[in-house]
Amino acid sequence: MNVDTLIKNARFVLTCDEQRTVLEQAGIAINDGRIVAIGNVDGFTATRMIDATDCIVLPGLINLHTHLPMTLLRGIAENVDLQGFLERVWAEEARIMGPKGTYLGARLGALEALLSGTTTALDMYFHPEAAHRGAVEVGLRHAIGPVFFDFPGPDGLEWSERIELTHSWPSLVEAIGGPHVPLYLMPHSPLIVNPEHLQQINELAREIDARINTHTSENDKENADTIAAHGDRPTALLRDSGLLDERTTLAHCVRLNDDDRVAIADAGASIAHNPGSNLKLASGAMDLVGYREQGITVGLGTDGCSSSNDLDMFAVLRLAANLARLVHHDPAAIGAEDIVRAATIDGASGLGMADRIGSIEVGKEADVIIVDASVPHLTPLRDPFTALVYAAGRSDVRDVFVAGEQVIADRLPTKVDQREVMEAARAHVEGRHGEDKS
Amino acid sequence: MNVDTLIKNARFVLTCDEQRTVLEQAGIAINDGRIVAIGNVDGFTATRMIDATDCIVLPGLINLHTHLPMTLLRGIAENVDLQGFLERVWAEEARIMGPKGTYLGARLGALEALLSGTTTALDMYFHPEAAHRGAVEVGLRHAIGPVFFDFPGPDGLEWSERIELTHSWPSLVEAIGGPHVPLYLMPHSPLIVNPEHLQQINELAREIDARINTHTSENDKENADTIAAHGDRPTALLRDSGLLDERTTLAHCVRLNDDDRVAIADAGASIAHNPGSNLKLASGAMDLVGYREQGITVGLGTDGCSSSNDLDMFAVLRLAANLARLVHHDPAAIGAEDIVRAATIDGASGLGMADRIGSIEVGKEADVIIVDASVPHLTPLRDPFTALVYAAGRSDVRDVFVAGEQVIADRLPTKVDQREVMEAARAHVEGRHGEDKS
Repeated sequence: MNVDTLIKNARFVLTCDEQRTVLEQAGIAINDGRIVAIGNVDGFTATRMIDATDCIVLPGLINLHTHLPMTLLRGIAENVDLQGFLERVWAEEARIMGPKGTYLGARLGALEALLSGTTTALDMYFHPEAAHRGAVEVGLRHAIGPVFFDFPGPDGLEWSERIELTHSWPSLVEAIGGPHVPLYLMPHSPLIVNPEHLQQINELAREIDARINTHTSENDKENADTIAAHGDRPTALLRDSGLLDERTTLAHCVRLNDDDRVAIADAGASIAHNPGSNLKLASGAMDLVGYREQGITVGLGTDGCSSSNDLDMFAVLRLAANLARLVHHDPAAIGAEDIVRAATIDGASGLGMADRIGSIEVGKEADVIIVDASVPHLTPLRDPFTALVYAAGRSDVRDVFVAGEQVIADRLPTKVDQREVMEAARAHVEGRHGEDKS
Repeated sequence: MNVDTLIKNARFVLTCDEQRTVLEQAGIAINDGRIVAIGNVDGFTATRMIDATDCIVLPGLINLHTHLPMTLLRGIAENVDLQGFLERVWAEEARIMGPKGTYLGARLGALEALLSGTTTALDMYFHPEAAHRGAVEVGLRHAIGPVFFDFPGPDGLEWSERIELTHSWPSLVEAIGGPHVPLYLMPHSPLIVNPEHLQQINELAREIDARINTHTSENDKENADTIAAHGDRPTALLRDSGLLDERTTLAHCVRLNDDDRVAIADAGASIAHNPGSNLKLASGAMDLVGYREQGITVGLGTDGCSSSNDLDMFAVLRLAANLARLVHHDPAAIGAEDIVRAATIDGASGLGMADRIGSIEVGKEADVIIVDASVPHLTPLRDPFTALVYAAGRSDVRDVFVAGEQVIADRLPTKVDQREVMEAARAHVEGRHGEDKS
């Protein structure tokens, strides 16, 4: 059989399937966007042959919480907590983050994400159609949706205009195209979306069959402010508005109490753990292992570049593994394989896409990355999961496939010009092309 | 004036001098191993011209605690604490870590270190002459010395043989050559070197004018075991033997009490902070900011690849900054510039070499690295220190100079063949060349 793409001679294929299958000296056949064979692929011919000698092949990483357009704001707010961070960011957003800045930032962020092995991102930002256009252009699998504030945000939209955008969102996503993602609605947080508005979002989400993404309990002050403003904790407000169920991904969840944890576990909602951002903003250390033991699905994320300050999921793998050891005073708190699963199949579950992506299995869409292990810092190579979590880095990602399309080839993007993407972003930030009123 | 090397057009030169001078659009002239001019270098001609457009130039990073030969043991001991780790490591050391394995591991580790921007390492291992030969061959500035155990270690040496090695150490270092480093003696820890032996090492060190490097208070069990074995805490035992003064660098110091901290501050000893290793082995979180506020010099280190599991000082920069925020619940706990200084000038102070390396100043030896910032994950570039700590990585290091010699050029070593270094290490680990009895 002739297929579109054959990946051959991989030292390890980490399937991340339910049986935790690891193949050695194996290949993958990809056709029409999907995986059609794994293991011995000698019987196939292919239009494109990829030699993966000395490489580790695994599912593309899933960044379960980010703000890609904010890549333009990298390094804007240093040495401040969440609230100080938001103040600084909002001022700069007013200056450069219109639809054009959003598009350029999403393009730059999507490029950085793909180069570092991330094939899917659950994104959140204003002007979601501009962000989606930018990310899809570079080749990322990009889930986003209308974001909700009680007050006009940097996008200047009134509440009624947010509702209007929601009604047109399915056709906008359809028109932009790109790899399949679910529809999303994104109330920013139960702090700045009041309970009545949360209920309205719940109704809208059911109308258009959308999933939900929101920030929850990132730090103690957010919890206290939410109680002061709306009389209850963020998780309880979400539950009472009907928004807490298996459709929902909660970003951060650093400061949950026992009731919050039980509510989230009972509801089947998932959590996006962002240890880099949480530590940098001194929000605290989320209890990854404890949440997992309660049966909560926890994926990993970077948060936006204005807080974390990059989109490096390999750095997140390592930090999540190390932070869990500190929180539990236990060097066996979580194994490297479970950390890799958190960034692949568990992230896919968080997106409601575990039947489509997150593992290397016949019939699934081919979101696959090839990590070159023939470098000094991966020599000698013993367990491949340990190598990925504790020694590999984004620069070891050589090739990236999203839905079968090779979007990174030998560390360069295939769909955009890297220099042009960087230069357009810089020019916009520096105001060389005038204010962003587009 | 004609010089050996001119680095031109750097976007930023971070001198790390006492005045914290940062130059923009600047150059560096290097001659006969030393820095002869900084800033406008238009008046110079040079044998070798290096264009640093879009680059950040800074002093080479100083890894203040590592075990380079143990790079061969990368990934050998996962999900165990310090004591479990030592058990597994010692078994494998008996198999492969004779003089040949030590040499091959040091070569591989030195290569990894240089590729990731480390120009100096304070190393500790058996067969120090084999390790030194390997590291110097690759071009690293490499400080090491005889290591002491009460009992025969994997090297099989009796106490009297360790004393003999110490007497011949100055001439061995002289014969091997390489960039200047001080002499060192390395009692493994006050747990496994008894007080009488510590005193003997103190006398030896004064005889040959050697500095001291040892492990101290890495975790609670080490403290308890030391008290049980020798009647006092590690820091007190070092002080009472005369070993605690400005010659001394203490690795780890995760679990110091108030008395220990005061004793170390009063003595002027320095500390090597290894956050990656400490978290991975669940030893705990060292109080970087608190120690600094007490006036203790704290440098940064990776520890060996069998615990941490690589030699990536950029990962250490980021983790040290984030961990300090967690420990102090303060997003302004320590600034990015102070983290970079910890890995450069403060590391040099720890080695007693602040007059020679650790900053870019006229008259100092030219240990300089060039970081290429023209990549998506460093775009846009605002503050260069923030970029280095929170977004840059080892793969951004393009060129590396040690004592004026270019040892890494465009991401490849100049003094060894990268493939040969990796292959020789792999072959040794896999026993393809027989047991290491050499």
